[in-house]
Order: sequence, then structure tokens, then C-alpha cells
Amino acid sequence: MSVVALIDFDPATGEATGFHLGDAEEPQLLVTDLAATRGDGIFETASLAHGHVHALEAHLARLAQSAAMLQLPEPDPAVWRAAVEAVGEALTAQGVDEGAVKFVLTRGVEGGSTPTGWVYGTASPDFSRERTEGVRIVLLDRGYRHDVPQTAPWLLAGAKTLSYAVNRAALREAARRGAEDVLFTSSDGYLLEGPTSTLLLRHGRRLVTPRVDLGILAGTTQADLFTWAEAEGYETGYELLTPADLASADAAWLVSSVRHVAPVRAVDGVARAVDRELSDRLNAALLARVR
Amino acid sequence: MSVVALIDFDPATGEATGFHLGDAEEPQLLVTDLAATRGDGIFETASLAHGHVHALEAHLARLAQSAAMLQLPEPDPAVWRAAVEAVGEALTAQGVDEGAVKFVLTRGVEGGSTPTGWVYGTASPDFSRERTEGVRIVLLDRGYRHDVPQTAPWLLAGAKTLSYAVNRAALREAARRGAEDVLFTSSDGYLLEGPTSTLLLRHGRRLVTPRVDLGILAGTTQADLFTWAEAEGYETGYELLTPADLASADAAWLVSSVRHVAPVRAVDGVARAVDRELSDRLNAALLARVR
Repeated sequence: MSVVALIDFDPATGEATGFHLGDAEEPQLLVTDLAATRGDGIFETASLAHGHVHALEAHLARLAQSAAMLQLPEPDPAVWRAAVEAVGEALTAQGVDEGAVKFVLTRGVEGGSTPTGWVYGTASPDFSRERTEGVRIVLLDRGYRHDVPQTAPWLLAGAKTLSYAVNRAALREAARRGAEDVLFTSSDGYLLEGPTSTLLLRHGRRLVTPRVDLGILAGTTQADLFTWAEAEGYETGYELLTPADLASADAAWLVSSVRHVAPVRAVDGVARAVDRELSDRLNAALLARVR
Repeated sequence: MSVVALIDFDPATGEATGFHLGDAEEPQLLVTDLAATRGDGIFETASLAHGHVHALEAHLARLAQSAAMLQLPEPDPAVWRAAVEAVGEALTAQGVDEGAVKFVLTRGVEGGSTPTGWVYGTASPDFSRERTEGVRIVLLDRGYRHDVPQTAPWLLAGAKTLSYAVNRAALREAARRGAEDVLFTSSDGYLLEGPTSTLLLRHGRRLVTPRVDLGILAGTTQADLFTWAEAEGYETGYELLTPADLASADAAWLVSSVRHVAPVRAVDGVARAVDRELSDRLNAALLARVR
């Protein structure tokens, strides 16, 4: 079960004018699209549950931020919002209860000036095991110092680009080491993020996540969790964190839009305690969202 | 004028069985192809001139090396060679004298196990000005230390992947600084390569290029130039080079498959001498190749 909406652009101005539903089983992209030849585009993935697309405004804001970092045309939020909602409704109508809606904006075809855009929705796999039992992770060096967003903005650290080959290679390295996920560190030793997730640590009644000025993505799901946690009386914070902070944390999670909250049950082969009760409450809070 | 050949894969085994010519103006890729969603694939670009595809065996060898680094299935050289030659012949038959033939292997559609592959050929733009007058370059930090291929192979340094968003951002940064190209440096200060080129320096009768164990591509065009230069009595070498070596060089070039040899005429806004005579001889040698 999958649905695709193709964004319509005015070839004269490059502006998005609307969208139309297409057939996701049929080819839609030219072999010269810069998404396919250069990973030159950006994306977001929002979750769908019980008929609601989650954190859509946060995803649209982050898409706009990535577009600015890559000097792509500013995505028209009205067009993208409508396309994402339409895909979410179509998936729901097909009986999908939990799904993922990915939206992609590329620089278009080589030599052209019109972007390409699409919204693709599909049912999610069953993540209940990851959400309860957790995942084993390895720490891997991302190779960049923590301050590259300031010193070398052309490295696009903190933009959500289509150039994810390294993220996928890191996951293969994790598998080789008997783990299911990765937490990247900066070359100077700070905790960053997972290939497709945000780190969350609990120290007592305090929940913390790495500072976003380290060239990582501002987590849309983590932001919703902080809102929930603050209402529950937790303190929250953005900090410069090290592996020692991870080791001393009462609990750790990797948080992402579609898998939601996955407790970290081992780091580099060393088991660690899982906070099953809070994991369940966090996941329940995410699934209960109506936007 | 463009031509595309699509590689046929056996869905049961994932093995390449042949190819067929397609219509490059029609969509050929699904929106779920990992080339488009993750930049998860590899490529090569060979030049075509006067009916000959250049350095094809070196490109096929490098494609195989990139495939191994990304744990992609080993590309069948016989199938890819035949497809590239067919695209070169079709372009030549269309009257293309100088062209580019790009071949791409991706991990295929998300969730599947069959790769996607194609060969795309098109006429080249006129590079005569870059080949004679040269290009202005800026030095930009690639963010990685020179030894990441050894310490962090998951960063894929030295693989020619489709995840080129950073390379393109670096070229935009160069344009902002009034230059046309980039020479990347390691975070610890060594000269690396351009986003799509290899550095070549001349010190007297000695031609040198950076060592390939720094996480850069082994240049197919630079290799052909070394062969030519050695026959002409030049010494050649692979070295650990710094910006001081660039400043003290008698001449510098960025070398690439399609643009060929572009003399460096300015570095970070400071003009430098161009060796017009040797540039012309190098470009003539490249264009005279019959394979």
C-alpha cells in the first residue's frame, strides 16, 4: 500500500502550483534528476497514525530550513501541507493505521531550473519490538568536528539532504558489529545524533538532548516529547554531551518520526538498563497526537 | 541529444543480464529508488571523443571498487562495458564529437533486492575556455582528517557515491567567492581533490598528485596523463601535499574526465601563472586517446 503525490511546478517561475496523485508503481523520475545523480535535494518524513499526520508544521519548517541551506527555492508550505495531508488521507482510506509520509524536494533535472517534488506515503513496519525491548547501538565517528556548521557551512551539517549514503554505510557498520543502530560522535568527542534519529537522555527528572548548533537536525519528535515531558514536570535541556553522559544516564533513547521512541539497550556491546515504563509513556504520548 | 541504456537485472538473483536502450526524456525511475531517496549508489563518468570512450577499463575498475566500499553487488564488467560502448556509439551516430557517458548503479528500490543501473550519454558543453584560460579555485575544508579512510571507513571517503550534495554546495560557495572550482583540504591541512577533479602540480620536470590513501578518488584521467608524461620524460609521483606545495608549484591543474585539464589561474583570489604550453599538450594528449 503506497500513495504518491507529485508536486506541480510552473516551468516559467519554478513555483509550486499544486499537486496531483500519481502511480507509485510507475516510474516518475528522469535519470537526469539531480536527486538520483547527485543526492541534491532535501526531505522530511512525518508519521501518520490513526488518521493524523504528526508534527507537520515542524517538518515544513525544517524543510524550509534545509532548502535555505542548500539554496533551493523556498517550498510553498500551503502546497506541501495540502499534498502531505492528501497522501495521509489516501493512506488512511486504504486502511493504514500507522504509516510514514516522506516529502522530497530536489533541484530538478540537470541543466534545468524547475525543482522536482513528491510526497510518498506507505504503511509502516511493526516497530513494537524496537519501541519496547530497544535497540543496540554503536558509537561511530562522523568525521567532523562539533563546530563545522560555523566553520564550514558548505558541509551542510544540519541540513536534511538526500545524500544519505554515509548514514546507510554507518548502519551496515553497526550490523557488522552486532547492533541495530548508530549514534554519531563528532571527531572531537561529542555526542551528535543517529543516522535517522535524535538522542534523548534521562538523568533523574531531567531529559536532555544534544545542542542543535553541533550540525545536527532539530528533532521534530524530540520537540513534541519535550513539550509532553515539561507538562509532566520534567526539566528539559539542550546540552553539549559526551559518551560519559550517555554512560551515566538513567535511560537513553533514539527518537525518530516513524519508529518513535526506541530505548537504547546496549552501547558498543555493553548492555544498559532500559526504562520500560517511561518508554511506554513516551510512545503512547506520540501515538496519541492529533497533529 | 542524449541516450540512455537501462541495465537489465534478473529479479531472482540481482545479476545484470544485459541492457536495453530507453527514452531519456521519459521517466525511468521510481520515487522509491534509493538513488533518489538516499543517494545510495555509485557512478562513473567517462568522456567520449571522436567516437572513442576513454579510460573505460579504469572507470569499470573504479566502479567495482566503489561497489565494494558500499557493499553493492559487484557490477558485471561485460554488461556495463557493452552498455557504455553502445551509448557511446549511439551518441557518435547522432553527430556528437565530444560527449560524456555517465554510468550509475544504485541499491534499487527501497525494500527490494534488485539494483538499478543505467548509462546516460550526452554531448559535452564547450570547455575550450576552461582548458586554455583556466579556472579560479578556492581551498575549502572537507571537514575530515586525512586518515579517515583508515579510521572511519563508513564515511566512504574515496568511494564515488551519488551523495554529492556537499560537492555541489562547495561549488556554490566557490561561486560566492568569485571562483569557478574548489580544491578540498583535509581538516588537518592536506590537499585532497576537487568536487569532480584531481589535482595535478608541476615542479620543474616532476608532476605530482595527492596520495590516494587520503580518501580521494584515484583519478582515471590523471592516470592517463601520468602514462603520457612518463613517456615524455617527466617524473611522476603521489605525495602528501599542502597548500605550500600548491603555492610553490610551477603550474597547477584540476583534471577530470570530461572537462579534461583545466589550469588553475587563481587560488583564493590570488592569481597564479598558467602553463599554457603544457596545458595544451596535456589536453591534446587526452583528446587523442583511442581508448
